[in-house]
Amino acid sequence: MVSEHQSSGLKMFVQSKLFTNFILLCVFLNAIVIGLQTYPSINSAYESLFEKFDLIFLGIFTLEVILKVIVHRRKYFKDGWNLFDFIVVAASIAFMQSQFVSVLRILRVLRILKTISSIHSLRRIITSLFMAIPTIGSISLLMIIVFYIYGVVGATFFAELSPVYFGDLSASLITLFQIATFDDWANIYRPIAENSPLSLVYFVTFIFLAVFVMLNLVVGEIVNNAANIPADVEEDIAGIEKDVHDIKEDTSEIQQLRDEVRELKYLLLEERNERNERKYKSVN
Amino acid sequence: MVSEHQSSGLKMFVQSKLFTNFILLCVFLNAIVIGLQTYPSINSAYESLFEKFDLIFLGIFTLEVILKVIVHRRKYFKDGWNLFDFIVVAASIAFMQSQFVSVLRILRVLRILKTISSIHSLRRIITSLFMAIPTIGSISLLMIIVFYIYGVVGATFFAELSPVYFGDLSASLITLFQIATFDDWANIYRPIAENSPLSLVYFVTFIFLAVFVMLNLVVGEIVNNAANIPADVEEDIAGIEKDVHDIKEDTSEIQQLRDEVRELKYLLLEERNERNERKYKSVN
Amino acid sequence: MVSEHQSSGLKMFVQSKLFTNFILLCVFLNAIVIGLQTYPSINSAYESLFEKFDLIFLGIFTLEVILKVIVHRRKYFKDGWNLFDFIVVAASIAFMQSQFVSVLRILRVLRILKTISSIHSLRRIITSLFMAIPTIGSISLLMIIVFYIYGVVGATFFAELSPVYFGDLSASLITLFQIATFDDWANIYRPIAENSPLSLVYFVTFIFLAVFVMLNLVVGEIVNNAANIPADVEEDIAGIEKDVHDIKEDTSEIQQLRDEVRELKYLLLEERNERNERKYKSVN
Amino acid sequence: MVSEHQSSGLKMFVQSKLFTNFILLCVFLNAIVIGLQTYPSINSAYESLFEKFDLIFLGIFTLEVILKVIVHRRKYFKDGWNLFDFIVVAASIAFMQSQFVSVLRILRVLRILKTISSIHSLRRIITSLFMAIPTIGSISLLMIIVFYIYGVVGATFFAELSPVYFGDLSASLITLFQIATFDDWANIYRPIAENSPLSLVYFVTFIFLAVFVMLNLVVGEIVNNAANIPADVEEDIAGIEKDVHDIKEDTSEIQQLRDEVRELKYLLLEERNERNERKYKSVN
Repeated sequence: MVSEHQSSGLKMFVQSKLFTNFILLCVFLNAIVIGLQTYPSINSAYESLFEKFDLIFLGIFTLEVILKVIVHRRKYFKDGWNLFDFIVVAASIAFMQSQFVSVLRILRVLRILKTISSIHSLRRIITSLFMAIPTIGSISLLMIIVFYIYGVVGATFFAELSPVYFGDLSASLITLFQIATFDDWANIYRPIAENSPLSLVYFVTFIFLAVFVMLNLVVGEIVNNAANIPADVEEDIAGIEKDVHDIKEDTSEIQQLRDEVRELKYLLLEERNERNERKYKSVN
Repeated sequence: MVSEHQSSGLKMFVQSKLFTNFILLCVFLNAIVIGLQTYPSINSAYESLFEKFDLIFLGIFTLEVILKVIVHRRKYFKDGWNLFDFIVVAASIAFMQSQFVSVLRILRVLRILKTISSIHSLRRIITSLFMAIPTIGSISLLMIIVFYIYGVVGATFFAELSPVYFGDLSASLITLFQIATFDDWANIYRPIAENSPLSLVYFVTFIFLAVFVMLNLVVGEIVNNAANIPADVEEDIAGIEKDVHDIKEDTSEIQQLRDEVRELKYLLLEERNERNERKYKSVN
Repeated sequence: MVSEHQSSGLKMFVQSKLFTNFILLCVFLNAIVIGLQTYPSINSAYESLFEKFDLIFLGIFTLEVILKVIVHRRKYFKDGWNLFDFIVVAASIAFMQSQFVSVLRILRVLRILKTISSIHSLRRIITSLFMAIPTIGSISLLMIIVFYIYGVVGATFFAELSPVYFGDLSASLITLFQIATFDDWANIYRPIAENSPLSLVYFVTFIFLAVFVMLNLVVGEIVNNAANIPADVEEDIAGIEKDVHDIKEDTSEIQQLRDEVRELKYLLLEERNERNERKYKSVN
Repeated sequence: MVSEHQSSGLKMFVQSKLFTNFILLCVFLNAIVIGLQTYPSINSAYESLFEKFDLIFLGIFTLEVILKVIVHRRKYFKDGWNLFDFIVVAASIAFMQSQFVSVLRILRVLRILKTISSIHSLRRIITSLFMAIPTIGSISLLMIIVFYIYGVVGATFFAELSPVYFGDLSASLITLFQIATFDDWANIYRPIAENSPLSLVYFVTFIFLAVFVMLNLVVGEIVNNAANIPADVEEDIAGIEKDVHDIKEDTSEIQQLRDEVRELKYLLLEERNERNERKYKSVN
């Protein structure tokens, strides 16, 4: 009973704004420290200080992981972001004493990536980015195939003329990505064009296709977003449609009503005629 | 009777998902092999293996063409994509033993282009691209004329100053295409501007026109696509319009109905007056 | 009377499809000849032939101007495009024998510009472009002022560091135009940044402002064009609105109608009661 | 009483179109003079003349500030733009005799910035720009974090390979900004890629993220603007909705009306039957 009570208090503490904001502050300070470490002069001057900061932040993040594991138990590891946090902390502890520069660098980058998992809105954006991949699937598939075909064509015809840019399929694909961003493509094209005039067709059609693909991505995004706007209008119109349909059913009865009123009139007129006849008879 | 039955069974087999997917798999594997062949080191190490793969794939694609011709007969050649497949296979067999490098390269590229004809959604995108050409016709015509005029002007005035970029009309047009993509245009402009200050007008107006043309293409695409959105709304509104019109006709009878009811009332009132008069008479 | 008849026949001829298309063909052929003349090798080989073609085309365009002046009289000169045609022909005749290369070049360019005045749809696009200038006025004014301010700031602070790019206001403005197209701006910025670290603020804010201005132009265009789409819907809705209003007036009479029908009922009931009373009386 | 009257007259004068336009003219002339001063040859030839102009404009702007302070009193300093004008004039007077070139340059730039505070529409655009910052806040925050993470990663892994572009965090961030504008990024990437093939992932993912962020900004702008279009339609539809609801209430009474008319008919028929019975009785 008591332990459950403690756990519940711990849960409230871990989920409290104070704790979340404190962790966020540490993430930001850690990011700044990692940023400062990229300056060689600053890094050499304050190296021992930075190492102490690193240890403090690692301690705080380790505590965060431990507290969260205690509170959420197995559920903690079901969330991809928590798993990422756990791996960052675990790897940082495991390779803390490593003498390899590249390992230390990867740890530093992992700790800077923790920024994403700590900011809730950023987590959501990244998740929605992954979600968006299937919706832009067909245009992406087209892009990949266009790149592959042009890559093979480029590597087949221009490999000898321009080994740096079209030496093999990988080099071709990178060059095509560069051309798709319009970056310095003419300086790639001109030396090739001197020996292979038909390369003009290759470059111009690829640029048009790249622009077409980009255009479709942009237009797709805009149309997707714009499609949400008239949703309210459509709902309103659907409501009106139903009401108008009901009204139509009501008003279609007006004709019947008129018929009935006309019947009434004839009944009355007949009656009067009868009476008049009677009167006439009685008078006569 | 039996042969027709066989042909029907063959048709089902050729159009089956299994056969289609198997051909697609071969197209993809063939594309990967062609891609690997662009790497000089890999190509020289596994040349004989690649040649065997080539023969196998060619055999499969030849069989595909033969089966489809048997099934569809003359209809097969009426579809442009089938014709393309046929030409690729026929050319691959005809020039198989060719010793010319350029011929082998073209065959390799044709086989990679088969990727497009094999993926149904890609076929449709390419077809719709060709379809879209007339709708963007007027802006394309404007673009061609603007390019031609600026090309002639460039070749006329800057040919001596910058023979590489504006030596003749073709060079000018390529340079203008480069400028339209904003790629390194300033490094073309500056040496010319030193001798011909008015070239500023040429470059700046061209860039504005190019942006204007691009803008119109983008806006056209977006508006075309966005125009499809309110189609449902318009349909709904058209339905409401018809209903409301019917209702209006119905309700316009209300006035007539009221007139008739009023007539009825007067008839009844008259009757009553008459009766009262009679009563009065009879009483008196 | 006869002369008027002749003039009317001439008018029909000048405005006929045949004459218009023939002139268009000549304009296109002339444009091709002028294009071919930009190739030094072709030009030197067929120079005398090109000169003869030039004379023939000049003769045809002179005849076109004369015929149109005869038909339209003073009205001809009221249209800016006709005036342009007239000037091109007049200048071509006046300077035909000129020995100055630059004069001949300008004439060549003027004749190529005749393409615009000859194609009706192109005339309209150019006119609509001029029309569009006031609507994009405020954003253009903002752009001019932003450019001017950044130009002065650049020429004031970076003139010594980078005389080629920021030597004076004109050089600054051209450089800013280059930066606005994102062309090679980093290679201008880096040498300046070494001596003047604050230049970062200058470059980054300018790029953001340029993107913002571009964005506003694009968005403005799109919104302007998109605004035309729901015009039909709005018209339909306005029609429905009117109809619904009419219906509402009609149906508001239903209550009155009901009142009258109720009155009728009471009249009939009263009558019946009376009769019953009478019956009762007469029975008693 | 008299002083108040004078003050009111002064207020009208300061707020009059004449005074505003005169100040605007001076601001423009001043901007032109400052622009001319950036040309070394013109500046050295007319230096004394420019100095006199500077004094005259400074006098006019000083008078403008004094008059406005007299008219608006304390309110004058509550507007940020007025405060800016005041500081420009005060600083220009304070540092007039300064011998430091950089001080004179800053004063010149401040005076050119006065153009913004003098043109009302420009003031509004700048204000609306500042207003827009929070609405594009989340995407900007994402952009900053993406830049920071990629900056640290770049500075960590590529510092030795490319000290100019990725030497430290600041250099990395500037390079990333350059890559985001697609300016010459391939020439930064290629030397790094030779030693670090994984750098491809770094560059390609960053370019995709940058395009994604840009795209979101553009789409956001467009959707924000487009959302204003159907506001009228929505209002119209809301009006129709209300009317249709009223009509529905009206027409729902038609059924009741029909019931009452039916009752009437039965009443009349009953009566007639009674009468007929009576008649029959009386006949019999």
